Amino acid sequence: MVAPTVTDRTTLRRRRDRGVHESAVIDAVLDEGLMCHVGFTAGGSPFVVPMAFARVGDDLYLHGAAANRTLRALAAGAEACVTVTLLDGLVLARAAFHHSMNYRSVMLFGRASRVVDEEEQLLASAALLDHMAPGRSADARPPAPAELRSTLILRFPIAEASAKVRTGPPVDDPGDLTLPTWAGVVPVGLVAGTPVDDPDLLAGTPVPGYAADHPRRPR
Amino acid sequence: MVAPTVTDRTTLRRRRDRGVHESAVIDAVLDEGLMCHVGFTAGGSPFVVPMAFARVGDDLYLHGAAANRTLRALAAGAEACVTVTLLDGLVLARAAFHHSMNYRSVMLFGRASRVVDEEEQLLASAALLDHMAPGRSADARPPAPAELRSTLILRFPIAEASAKVRTGPPVDDPGDLTLPTWAGVVPVGLVAGTPVDDPDLLAGTPVPGYAADHPRRPR
Repeated sequence: MVAPTVTDRTTLRRRRDRGVHESAVIDAVLDEGLMCHVGFTAGGSPFVVPMAFARVGDDLYLHGAAANRTLRALAAGAEACVTVTLLDGLVLARAAFHHSMNYRSVMLFGRASRVVDEEEQLLASAALLDHMAPGRSADARPPAPAELRSTLILRFPIAEASAKVRTGPPVDDPGDLTLPTWAGVVPVGLVAGTPVDDPDLLAGTPVPGYAADHPRRPR
Repeated sequence: MVAPTVTDRTTLRRRRDRGVHESAVIDAVLDEGLMCHVGFTAGGSPFVVPMAFARVGDDLYLHGAAANRTLRALAAGAEACVTVTLLDGLVLARAAFHHSMNYRSVMLFGRASRVVDEEEQLLASAALLDHMAPGRSADARPPAPAELRSTLILRFPIAEASAKVRTGPPVDDPGDLTLPTWAGVVPVGLVAGTPVDDPDLLAGTPVPGYAADHPRRPR
């Protein structure tokens, strides 16, 4: 993709070492994250709403019921900030002050556009399914025209973007290194478990590989 | 805790069945979540920033460097929305349209106050450590006065609050139940792995139980 724009909003004022503007890092975080947090202002109040999403090239797709007030505010042109955060580790330093988290986070700024073209709506729908489980869109019944009409699909540009990344061990003051306290990182990550059949599933329907062997199953 | 206030902002306009105002549900989500997403408006733009937090009674504590612009905006009285989301499952329906996520999410609205009392600062610091790993605050070197001066600790009230919860299997249209497509839920959750020693750790320092047997280790 085109390198995202660096603006005042995406320039980190502190900790420039944690700021990243590389497209590859931004795309990787967006592709690994399953939920984003969408921020916007309505009636003078800030709102932060969790939503599913999927990336296709230089855009994110968001979707939901046509009556969803977050999507309606965004479709009406509200400026938004979309943040995706992956938590990677709990950083336990010797000093309380130096405790931290390892994480990768992307912030996007911009305005969404409503997707009205049916071909793009179907593409977005497939991308949203495949983002949850790669290949799922080939198995699911595609959206019917009436379903598309009751769904609001939005396109959000990955244009004004930044990433923040912290990795590695704790950073303690040199004077604390002789303390007898354990220090290190407890790694954490989102892991998939064994799929649970729908109670109404037709007997003998096999669990597809993208569910049984989901990319987030422990290896 | 006192029952949170139900306002226009915390009243779900749709899907009232997914809206919860019970304190016990709200507290449970806040206690399980490790990161929150803080939304506020600055210079006319919405921002959504991931942060660590901890709950103590009817308040959340947030903290960071005194120069952190999110904390400074909040300390200056900016209205904020703090959202904590736990992703529990990928809901694969037979129809693309009915795919969903199982999750538990809490939204808090309000304004933060700066914590200036040293006793409360130490309480907040301990809560933030124990939220990452229960018991950690007893082992870590407590914050020194100079460290407290370079830290901004904020108290955010759990007052205007709501939770949203989706659980259970997919909900397909009756006409789709005879499709040969697998449907069900792929459970997901945040899992802790084996702790990684700090490279500078004194030889022979044992890994404490709250790290080796962290509450998020698979059972």
